[in-house]
Amino acid sequence: MVTLGTQLEYSRLTNTPFAMANPVFTYTFDQLPLQRSGQFGPVTLAYETWGTLNAAADNAILIVHALTGSSHAHDAEHPDDPKVAWWNPLIGPGRPFDTTRYFVICSTILGGCYGSTGPSSIDPRSGQSYGMRFPVITIRDMVNAQRILIEHLGVRQLAMVAGGSIGGQQALEWAVTYPELVRNVVVVAATAALTAQAVAFSEVGRQAIMADPRWQGGDYSPGQGPDAGLSIARMLAMITYQSEEAMELRFARRPACNSVIATPSGAADLGSRFDVEGYLYYQGQALVERFDANSYLYISRAMDLYDVSEGYPSLEAALRRLRSRALFIGIRSDFLFPPARVRWLANQVRSLGGDATYVELDSPYGHDAFLKEWEQMASALNLIKE
Amino acid sequence: MVTLGTQLEYSRLTNTPFAMANPVFTYTFDQLPLQRSGQFGPVTLAYETWGTLNAAADNAILIVHALTGSSHAHDAEHPDDPKVAWWNPLIGPGRPFDTTRYFVICSTILGGCYGSTGPSSIDPRSGQSYGMRFPVITIRDMVNAQRILIEHLGVRQLAMVAGGSIGGQQALEWAVTYPELVRNVVVVAATAALTAQAVAFSEVGRQAIMADPRWQGGDYSPGQGPDAGLSIARMLAMITYQSEEAMELRFARRPACNSVIATPSGAADLGSRFDVEGYLYYQGQALVERFDANSYLYISRAMDLYDVSEGYPSLEAALRRLRSRALFIGIRSDFLFPPARVRWLANQVRSLGGDATYVELDSPYGHDAFLKEWEQMASALNLIKE
Repeated sequence: MVTLGTQLEYSRLTNTPFAMANPVFTYTFDQLPLQRSGQFGPVTLAYETWGTLNAAADNAILIVHALTGSSHAHDAEHPDDPKVAWWNPLIGPGRPFDTTRYFVICSTILGGCYGSTGPSSIDPRSGQSYGMRFPVITIRDMVNAQRILIEHLGVRQLAMVAGGSIGGQQALEWAVTYPELVRNVVVVAATAALTAQAVAFSEVGRQAIMADPRWQGGDYSPGQGPDAGLSIARMLAMITYQSEEAMELRFARRPACNSVIATPSGAADLGSRFDVEGYLYYQGQALVERFDANSYLYISRAMDLYDVSEGYPSLEAALRRLRSRALFIGIRSDFLFPPARVRWLANQVRSLGGDATYVELDSPYGHDAFLKEWEQMASALNLIKE
Repeated sequence: MVTLGTQLEYSRLTNTPFAMANPVFTYTFDQLPLQRSGQFGPVTLAYETWGTLNAAADNAILIVHALTGSSHAHDAEHPDDPKVAWWNPLIGPGRPFDTTRYFVICSTILGGCYGSTGPSSIDPRSGQSYGMRFPVITIRDMVNAQRILIEHLGVRQLAMVAGGSIGGQQALEWAVTYPELVRNVVVVAATAALTAQAVAFSEVGRQAIMADPRWQGGDYSPGQGPDAGLSIARMLAMITYQSEEAMELRFARRPACNSVIATPSGAADLGSRFDVEGYLYYQGQALVERFDANSYLYISRAMDLYDVSEGYPSLEAALRRLRSRALFIGIRSDFLFPPARVRWLANQVRSLGGDATYVELDSPYGHDAFLKEWEQMASALNLIKE
């Protein structure tokens, strides 16, 4: 029997465009041994579930979200709208993550700001938000927290772990750290470790946040944070999530039809405004309204620090641990997690005796294609159906 | 006979690693009609020359620098060191830009901060720096200012105009706007217009500068400018001037050997510091010590705004104006000015009846390869030797 945790009553921002039909639960545990920073606790994870755990407790699918995502991967009341829930079109009756057959779980990751413990949470020892006193967390820490959650939910084995980007890093880490617990793993747009270029982009965004005087060393009040810095970080990230090809298709050199949206700096346009600029200001502003800047720092840093070989004698030694059937999905136009590196990782697993398949999404949309190319994603996921 | 202007005595920053052996001259004229902003003046251009103008006044080569460059393209006392002068290895006796045969001219562009009129110059009407009261300038304005300079120098026809990046944009604009004045043109790592992605990267950097409270709407005192913002902008730009391949070769995921250099924000490292991060902090700091933030805003914006077809019925109509022998040089790993777009431009010129050659540098160094690949650059330039 599944024991669900306490139903969560946390305030979502009023401009969030969806009603939360699915209950968000939380589970709190005392201690989490961190990979780099000793013991940490208490830890709360917010999560949602769809479907029912079977008697054998082995039909659970763990879905892992991307950087600024949340547990709201699916919304049964608006099942076709990816704006309402981020992997909506892939989850539900008859879909790749079939909620009539599987018990689908998605939890907001450790470090996040949608109900799971993160830098904006109150440290019970001080009564204040952690801010930058939050410990440095890693992909393995996120996975270990999820493991405690699924044990609490009574799951004996995961039929699948699946995620893209930082979610793909966690899926890979799950399969390497807990091979006996993961029957199938889907690693989308993620690699064994970030490139120097990807780390560099990531750090530029973090510096923009921390250079904002409203950041205050991380000790800002809610709603008084480094909006300009976070907005600039998001503008840059949105470029890296897309591609030259996609931006050319969508914006090219078209002028903006208006200049209604303020720039992050508040400064006037220098000459005319391009459409792509107005779009990026909008994206920056939208993130500021829904995400915590310190969470952004910690989670993006976890992506940089991730190296699947950490703690093992070699990359091969790490990958040789896999027992899961593995599906790696790369994206033709992704320059943050280049498809050649995803394919290389799949080949490495296979050459070490693992069961790995590589599929490449033929998409112009860049890294974000795993949140857009529903038909190609569904076809790929069907390859690994049980 | 060549009339050189007034020799310039401007203070270079003390940490500039080179002695100025070559005199820097200035020429000031009253008015420059701007492409978008009416009349502007007075305008001073700082420039250097090497070699001697011949009796026919038709052996001048105009070299055009990149975004944060200056007139110091060559230093006869340290002719082999590109750190002393930016195109040093290509200029001098027996080199592609042969100073025994040609009268080589390089001027700091309009909008710059190395002696030519720019936002940090004093507006004689107010006695204050222009700051953001400086007009929006374009590539064509830079070219028109250069044209007034070469007329002052007595040049009747340019044997060649050559430059990379924004220098390549100016070279192209020279050949389109003044076809009868340019016998040969070398356009390196530049295209007909920036992509949406390149504009987007550029705007993120500018927002970082303008969000820095020390920017003060552009009215900062010398030495009191938006150092953090400019440093962040430079960090980002340095990523776009390189390539994933080059950064992987040079940095991969190596940790920094120390954390001596402060981050732009002044914040502590989150976890460990990667070598690539330390490198970028250094590059940011180095630019802050030698460049004006408002100049950065105006010049980078001129790059974004550039479209060779502006003012003509079509791109074809613009390119059909070319009379110069044209050499287009693309760089295999350049993602800011993708080689396919440089090649396409060369093909367009040729298909319209122009004399255009395309050469691609086989380099991992990205956009900056035109400041590094000396042998390949020299080989390419030899193709267009008179």
